[in-house]
Amino acid sequence: MKAAISSLISSKNLNFHCSRTTLLHSKPVFPRSPSFLSPTPTKTHQIRTNFDKTSRIHTTHFSSIMASSYKPEQARAPPALSLPAPPVTKARYFFKIGLCQLSVTPDKERNIAHARKAIEEAASKGAQLIMLPEIWNSPYSNDSFPVYAEDIDAGGDASPSTAMLSEVARLLKITIVGGSIPERVRDKLYNTCCIFGSDGKLKAKHRKIHLFDIDIPGKITFIESKTLTAGQSPTIVDTGRIGVGICYDLRFQELAMIYAARGAHLLCYPGAFNMTTGPLHWELLQRARAADNQLYVATCSPARDAGAGYVAWGHSTLVGPFGEVLATAEHEETIVIAEIDYSIIELRRTNLPLQKQRRGDLYQLVDVQRLNSE
Amino acid sequence: MKAAISSLISSKNLNFHCSRTTLLHSKPVFPRSPSFLSPTPTKTHQIRTNFDKTSRIHTTHFSSIMASSYKPEQARAPPALSLPAPPVTKARYFFKIGLCQLSVTPDKERNIAHARKAIEEAASKGAQLIMLPEIWNSPYSNDSFPVYAEDIDAGGDASPSTAMLSEVARLLKITIVGGSIPERVRDKLYNTCCIFGSDGKLKAKHRKIHLFDIDIPGKITFIESKTLTAGQSPTIVDTGRIGVGICYDLRFQELAMIYAARGAHLLCYPGAFNMTTGPLHWELLQRARAADNQLYVATCSPARDAGAGYVAWGHSTLVGPFGEVLATAEHEETIVIAEIDYSIIELRRTNLPLQKQRRGDLYQLVDVQRLNSE
Repeated sequence: MKAAISSLISSKNLNFHCSRTTLLHSKPVFPRSPSFLSPTPTKTHQIRTNFDKTSRIHTTHFSSIMASSYKPEQARAPPALSLPAPPVTKARYFFKIGLCQLSVTPDKERNIAHARKAIEEAASKGAQLIMLPEIWNSPYSNDSFPVYAEDIDAGGDASPSTAMLSEVARLLKITIVGGSIPERVRDKLYNTCCIFGSDGKLKAKHRKIHLFDIDIPGKITFIESKTLTAGQSPTIVDTGRIGVGICYDLRFQELAMIYAARGAHLLCYPGAFNMTTGPLHWELLQRARAADNQLYVATCSPARDAGAGYVAWGHSTLVGPFGEVLATAEHEETIVIAEIDYSIIELRRTNLPLQKQRRGDLYQLVDVQRLNSE
Repeated sequence: MKAAISSLISSKNLNFHCSRTTLLHSKPVFPRSPSFLSPTPTKTHQIRTNFDKTSRIHTTHFSSIMASSYKPEQARAPPALSLPAPPVTKARYFFKIGLCQLSVTPDKERNIAHARKAIEEAASKGAQLIMLPEIWNSPYSNDSFPVYAEDIDAGGDASPSTAMLSEVARLLKITIVGGSIPERVRDKLYNTCCIFGSDGKLKAKHRKIHLFDIDIPGKITFIESKTLTAGQSPTIVDTGRIGVGICYDLRFQELAMIYAARGAHLLCYPGAFNMTTGPLHWELLQRARAADNQLYVATCSPARDAGAGYVAWGHSTLVGPFGEVLATAEHEETIVIAEIDYSIIELRRTNLPLQKQRRGDLYQLVDVQRLNSE
């Protein structure tokens, strides 16, 4: 297994390469008439991201194609991708997700065995996609991160946590969004989520992009950047089409918007909000990301341990594409099993056709890496 | 008064010119060292919006200035503006807002007199900023819009609704965000909000940018674009620094992001969500806009009339910069009086310094009109 993981993660830019592969096979979300195809794509992008006088010339061209003169397709650069083509079987649209809200202790071996048991239980209840919490193999603290960190790229004994995830994914034929663990890469530490396919192979790694540095005096102060380094790429994987963020990443609406424009069905955020930010924002932010982007959002928190240095809010949740809470938990250890039906996404986007109503003539969200790769 | 209004709205691009004036006097939100000032602003923007190879050269330059190498200042183009400089008196930071959740009837004269009374009542309770609902002088229907529409630019008898707003603003020395009314401009109709200063002068007009075209079968279907034309500009006014949207505009997170980057303290959305979208999204969206952009959000709905063709949800609300509901209403006619303290915005942005944590190296929201004007 060590070799398998190593080969998959040998590219420094794995995350983006994963998504790039799919981008090449995806179609634009807005139908284009044959006449649209005449300008070179390069030229179109230059105009979309460089609002100079030439854009007015291009407007004339678009106006004959789009029902709207408001250039909704330009509200994202590059333009938003369509959802992936319908799968052959209904089963790929409709499946159960399991959110393992685990208790986490200072005993790493116990945490790994415990997580495995929870995954097995979720799978026995029919979950095909199983998610773990943020930092599930270690206490959540800057002191613990270096101690519990693993060399994921080395795999095997150097990363017992991900070795377990890979094995159990393969044995149970399930997809695992493996929460996160502290990752060591030479002299750097990351907060990293590994996504394993039902063949046990590592599909992608997401390193937390936005580090948790906040200061609400008398309530919660945490400076994750004291020990951790931020990741360099958004991460989208094709086990369904899943965008991944970790905890504080959820606060940045731009990341969810990028994922939606990359054709995501589902955003998975392992997270550990606390007793201040949890009641304030945990549910709000996931519902907002789901409703604004018209896709599913799933979160998975550790169970609450009132005696821990950092007390997690819990409340792992699945939200539907109307921003509706479909299933949730309280704060104790539990497994949330809930049904996802990707076909609902198309329905909601027909009900509220936001993507066709955006004002690309007034605003544009640029996905920098995707644009640079084109 | 007619002359006063006419002179103020003679420019076709009034809305943007209003904000442009302030932009020139604002400072960037991120401190720049003297060495930053050497490159020409034009060159900087070219690099920010045109992700070519030269951006790498520029990165080197930024890295000596920003604590972060993640280019948070590039997450908005042009870069986000600072909040306006502190006012001379505390009173300008701290004031009462009044949200007049009015009943609306087919009798226009009654609606105008009724709105005036409500404004007077709100002012008598100390409100210095008073907001009316979307379409408060007319039933909300495509049949009614042409019948109740007024020529706001002509003013006086041609627009009795805005004449009343101007007069009462001047007499009571209050600012009015005048909900919206159907506006006629030659052969076009708009859904338009007029903002009057405490001198009775029209500060800005916002024409609904995103028209309400939705279809949730068996629940709610409404195609506003059958009769209305969409506005062409975001609108921000300096009576405080207020960004204005109307109802469906609230669904588009990009608009709120633009306003925040233009230095808004408060977003005002007159709106009339319905019995389907109201319970689903009314509170969620305003809380999300407030929390994501760390500013105040106020909404004002008509009171519910179960016998009307379009049944409004009600629930006019003020939300604080942590996304917390500060004051709200049920569905019956009422006036919500609530306190706003703009200094809280800075506090929340210190607690959660999102604007310094954004990843301008990964995403960028472009404010097209502001960029073009530079």
